[in-house]
Amino acid sequence: MTVVNSTSEMLKPESVSLHPLGAAAAAVPEMLCIFGTGDLGRSLGLRLLQSGYRVVYGSRRPHSCGPLPQGSQVMSHGAAAQSASLIFICVHREHYGFLETMAPHLAGKVLVDLSNNLKKGIHPEPNAAYLQRLVPGAAVVKGLNTLSAWALQNGLLAGKQVYLCGNSAEAKRAVAEMSTKLGLTALDRGSLSAAGELEDFPLQLFPEWRLPLRVAVGLTAFFFFYLVIRDVIYGYVEQDKDISYRIMVSLANKDVFCVCPPSLIMLALCYLPGGIAASLQLYRGTKYRRFPDWLDRWMLCRKQMGLIALGLAFLHVIHTFMTPTRYSVRHTLITLVVDEMKNNKTTPFYFDNTEAWGQDSFYALGILGFFLYVLLGLTSLPSVGGSLSWREFNFIQSKLGHLTLFICTAHGYIYGWNTFLRPATYKWYTPPAYMLCLIVPSVVLVLKALVLLPCVDRTLTRIRQGWERNQPTEEIGKVTNL
Amino acid sequence: MTVVNSTSEMLKPESVSLHPLGAAAAAVPEMLCIFGTGDLGRSLGLRLLQSGYRVVYGSRRPHSCGPLPQGSQVMSHGAAAQSASLIFICVHREHYGFLETMAPHLAGKVLVDLSNNLKKGIHPEPNAAYLQRLVPGAAVVKGLNTLSAWALQNGLLAGKQVYLCGNSAEAKRAVAEMSTKLGLTALDRGSLSAAGELEDFPLQLFPEWRLPLRVAVGLTAFFFFYLVIRDVIYGYVEQDKDISYRIMVSLANKDVFCVCPPSLIMLALCYLPGGIAASLQLYRGTKYRRFPDWLDRWMLCRKQMGLIALGLAFLHVIHTFMTPTRYSVRHTLITLVVDEMKNNKTTPFYFDNTEAWGQDSFYALGILGFFLYVLLGLTSLPSVGGSLSWREFNFIQSKLGHLTLFICTAHGYIYGWNTFLRPATYKWYTPPAYMLCLIVPSVVLVLKALVLLPCVDRTLTRIRQGWERNQPTEEIGKVTNL
Amino acid sequence: MTVVNSTSEMLKPESVSLHPLGAAAAAVPEMLCIFGTGDLGRSLGLRLLQSGYRVVYGSRRPHSCGPLPQGSQVMSHGAAAQSASLIFICVHREHYGFLETMAPHLAGKVLVDLSNNLKKGIHPEPNAAYLQRLVPGAAVVKGLNTLSAWALQNGLLAGKQVYLCGNSAEAKRAVAEMSTKLGLTALDRGSLSAAGELEDFPLQLFPEWRLPLRVAVGLTAFFFFYLVIRDVIYGYVEQDKDISYRIMVSLANKDVFCVCPPSLIMLALCYLPGGIAASLQLYRGTKYRRFPDWLDRWMLCRKQMGLIALGLAFLHVIHTFMTPTRYSVRHTLITLVVDEMKNNKTTPFYFDNTEAWGQDSFYALGILGFFLYVLLGLTSLPSVGGSLSWREFNFIQSKLGHLTLFICTAHGYIYGWNTFLRPATYKWYTPPAYMLCLIVPSVVLVLKALVLLPCVDRTLTRIRQGWERNQPTEEIGKVTNL
Repeated sequence: MTVVNSTSEMLKPESVSLHPLGAAAAAVPEMLCIFGTGDLGRSLGLRLLQSGYRVVYGSRRPHSCGPLPQGSQVMSHGAAAQSASLIFICVHREHYGFLETMAPHLAGKVLVDLSNNLKKGIHPEPNAAYLQRLVPGAAVVKGLNTLSAWALQNGLLAGKQVYLCGNSAEAKRAVAEMSTKLGLTALDRGSLSAAGELEDFPLQLFPEWRLPLRVAVGLTAFFFFYLVIRDVIYGYVEQDKDISYRIMVSLANKDVFCVCPPSLIMLALCYLPGGIAASLQLYRGTKYRRFPDWLDRWMLCRKQMGLIALGLAFLHVIHTFMTPTRYSVRHTLITLVVDEMKNNKTTPFYFDNTEAWGQDSFYALGILGFFLYVLLGLTSLPSVGGSLSWREFNFIQSKLGHLTLFICTAHGYIYGWNTFLRPATYKWYTPPAYMLCLIVPSVVLVLKALVLLPCVDRTLTRIRQGWERNQPTEEIGKVTNL
Repeated sequence: MTVVNSTSEMLKPESVSLHPLGAAAAAVPEMLCIFGTGDLGRSLGLRLLQSGYRVVYGSRRPHSCGPLPQGSQVMSHGAAAQSASLIFICVHREHYGFLETMAPHLAGKVLVDLSNNLKKGIHPEPNAAYLQRLVPGAAVVKGLNTLSAWALQNGLLAGKQVYLCGNSAEAKRAVAEMSTKLGLTALDRGSLSAAGELEDFPLQLFPEWRLPLRVAVGLTAFFFFYLVIRDVIYGYVEQDKDISYRIMVSLANKDVFCVCPPSLIMLALCYLPGGIAASLQLYRGTKYRRFPDWLDRWMLCRKQMGLIALGLAFLHVIHTFMTPTRYSVRHTLITLVVDEMKNNKTTPFYFDNTEAWGQDSFYALGILGFFLYVLLGLTSLPSVGGSLSWREFNFIQSKLGHLTLFICTAHGYIYGWNTFLRPATYKWYTPPAYMLCLIVPSVVLVLKALVLLPCVDRTLTRIRQGWERNQPTEEIGKVTNL
Repeated sequence: MTVVNSTSEMLKPESVSLHPLGAAAAAVPEMLCIFGTGDLGRSLGLRLLQSGYRVVYGSRRPHSCGPLPQGSQVMSHGAAAQSASLIFICVHREHYGFLETMAPHLAGKVLVDLSNNLKKGIHPEPNAAYLQRLVPGAAVVKGLNTLSAWALQNGLLAGKQVYLCGNSAEAKRAVAEMSTKLGLTALDRGSLSAAGELEDFPLQLFPEWRLPLRVAVGLTAFFFFYLVIRDVIYGYVEQDKDISYRIMVSLANKDVFCVCPPSLIMLALCYLPGGIAASLQLYRGTKYRRFPDWLDRWMLCRKQMGLIALGLAFLHVIHTFMTPTRYSVRHTLITLVVDEMKNNKTTPFYFDNTEAWGQDSFYALGILGFFLYVLLGLTSLPSVGGSLSWREFNFIQSKLGHLTLFICTAHGYIYGWNTFLRPATYKWYTPPAYMLCLIVPSVVLVLKALVLLPCVDRTLTRIRQGWERNQPTEEIGKVTNL
């Protein structure tokens, strides 16, 4: 049935005229034109052929332009432009000049500008705007410029988002349809004035990672110098020992490596803005007033902060595993044995049960904390996080996250359980690093505990459902928003 | 060509009237309405604007409803409803009341109910059914309620599946088209009677993980108490030693931590149902009879079982790495040296070559087993598993899985290779934990070996291709199904 | 508005006739037929029902064909074929015979052949071609055969690519539309002559991993025997020691495990083709000449090489962590202490500061290198890599990759920093393994350093933008391609 009907439809020219853009519907596939036979042009052509289009290349040297995908044609620019209504411009901006001379051939065509720049701000106007100025009669669409030749060749497009912009809605729609057939999801970003933004997009270098990375580097540097001063310089000045070798691996007073405190602090910083936001909402009695800008920015980079914290924790764990093989650690152990033997005590190795309990708890908490940390990290993977329901995601990131923070903080407290009150701990009147790094996590945990109190929790839930403490009386309980 | 034709199409009103829903085809984008200016409403609006729609908000306080996405309009509810045919209801169910009074404005509109509840079963009827009852003239579609404001804002929608249900096929189709433009994949779940199911969906908390987690907790608890009794209590009663500190990290008779046996057993439990299913099919001589329910349920949670087994193996491995830094282990080592020195034997440290071979093999198998375990886990990631061909997936999950199980079981056997026959091994006449945990894996491996026998394998392959031992004679070899 | 218009459209039969294939647009969903009630048939039916289609099964035993998805119908093959225009053939090729007798019922229908074979090349012609020969009046489309019953049941389809081929463009279009509704991305692979290729697709077993795996196995075997000869056999022959136990875990001269050199070499081999390609382009003065085939093949398996290198590095790291718990290592340590005690030196344990610096640097570089290695591996995950911009991906894979290689190479150099000139290092006049494995990485790093020289870098950038040294004069600077 279907086949027969569709075939008969093709015989009726008037019915075809109602689907002028649905060229894929016709038995003969639509012809698309690509200007440029470079890597991108070739990969794009291959992909278009695979998706059922016919492809013609426009080249300055049609007879010597290297290997092109099987099934495609190659012509001079002018002839190629004639045979298609959609033309991909896979040519460097520097060489757009020749398009101006071809403007008459391009009138009424859709030109897709896929070009990128090597750096930001080297041209006063975006490439696409420049192209539109050269060929005013054509409908320029900027887009697909985030696709690499590599991704096109390897078919890594499924579900990928691409942005389009352009002044002609028709042209954008034609490009969007073509994108959909390639397995892409096209999003409309408005008129051609957005072209600059789209062209800057592939030049972005982890913009959302900058703040968290700065915080991490700052914290790590602080603790590095803090430990150098307290450990190496203090030892040199007061005890006349040269333990400068410690700088390299660990700066270790046993295990407090300079990445371990920043890791805990950054994990706490992931959960601090949530606590601050809850306090603000409680204080204001409404959720309809915006948070200050710094809080918004902070909340948007929590995921990145958490991942950096995980990276630091990973370094901390590997470092701990390496500890027993280190020269200095083995040396200390051997010296201990030899000293004990020489002193020839009768009960040289009294087994301290409390010490064993303390240390084993310390390790158990560390292992469990790291395990939960890794779980949190795994659910940050786009493909894993995307398969969770909202409540599951919330459970993991909030409940499990706070549990992880609690366990890691406890790990820190147990580390120093018997040294808090010892004066020798406070070299040069400064607290040891592990105490410093427990401050922020403790604050976050206390804040969370307060929010979990039944009376506070109830008020907060009501506020988040839209209740307002100072609501205009006539509207109370009328409409609240999700 | 394309552009020209499309433009001329826009001039012919009759051709436009044939595409009443394809509003995206027109030069002026379709207007969508959102009731509610909360987080979800704002994020959804932003996303719709990005996808090329126009957006109007309906608000109870159009002049003081906080910051809305650039490019959107805001009006009173009534005015907003007038200007669009598709209305998103981003309002809490508690406040649906006002929609009843607006019913005349909403007649003939598509209302998309995105609401969720905080808990299951707090309302007798689903939110969407309630909404339909309030506004009988509108076509209510339940759906998109699995999207979070967070995912909408961060553009994590590509390829995500959303479910729709509703009584009007037209309305569902309109919502499905809109979803497709947002990059979502809409699946139809039937009439509005399925709304309750869709509303429970975001409230699910790892339903498929429950059974495996219970098994894991049960096994771990069993081995924990088994080890406490055999190690700590036995030591206390029979040898008068206090080794309670061991409870915390390890309960370790050297390395048998209480998570290690459950890990091996759970890995075996992943492959046991496959063996049972094959045996059942061989016994019945057909694949067309259903498996018992418990076997079906078991087979559906194999992936989760495997991942929990991997988690436990991860803990086991970390614990092993931590062993040499533990206080008690270092104490034992030092004591050993000192004792040896005191006794002043002439050849105190005879190097036992067999022991070295055994232990190094034990470690090598453990390392290899863990490595394969991690590989198996990586291919369970949706994005990795999805890129494998059927045969590759099968190769990894079946062949590599059984190899992993074999190596881990061998790791267990070597652990106790020289203690199987020693009476001291059987404290209080109980076998040690590592023996207990080898039973299930051994059974699975024997079962697999039997299935791999050529004669059995041949019969099984024929059965799986549709052959039946007791097939009605007239149909033998006629049609079998994939 | 929308709903009303669409409904009125359905009342006009002529407007409906213009959308013969857009069955989803009609209020009554399209009926699809499935021949075969096996696992695949049932899963596919379930999925089609979820996507809003009606489903009818054709079965040889309509009354006893086991449980089918709720909402589907089941009939005899003939009756089922009558009621749908698109028929899925979920039957083994061996039983296609009955379709020939049904040919009259199937004329004009679209037959989707989903079948796969168990092995390559067991049939002279592809299943789909055979089917077309049996039913010449139908339009056979080969495709969807990469979907497993398991993926269909679990809804793991979103964004997945499926390939279609067939002689009728109409039939392919109908199947492609159906695929899109299921959340799949359909790619057209041309006429039915491509069917054999599509049928071989699910039988592929990691084709792109073969070369890297062979290289890895070769290198590992080489280093294994090299270490056995230099360590075990040399020790046995020259020093009369039996250290055969070392074969099992490590073949370790301290830490040089037989997987560690291959890991470093394979990481270098990932970056070597890039260097070779750059040199070739510089030498030829153009980017328009193709690379030799071996270089192309090499460049295509860089990702797999890198991942295998990561796997080997992972083994190396785990092995290092296990070192202190090994029997032989503990034995060496104890023997050392006892020997020192017996000799009763006055300053038995001189702490060598240089040694401590060297070893701690060695470990620090190793930890950092492994950390970066893991980062590189994570960005190879499809879901992570897909979310990076082109510049970010480039930054990670090129800059960070070379940094990783540099750090790992430095780790290797420091390992042997004080043994390069010692004659005892060269047992039997052979260099130790770690020296051998530093050759390739050093070459790659030198090559990269040369390419980074400003003058070379500038020329290379120009060549990659399309500049040619020997360009025909009339065209210089005219058009270059992306």
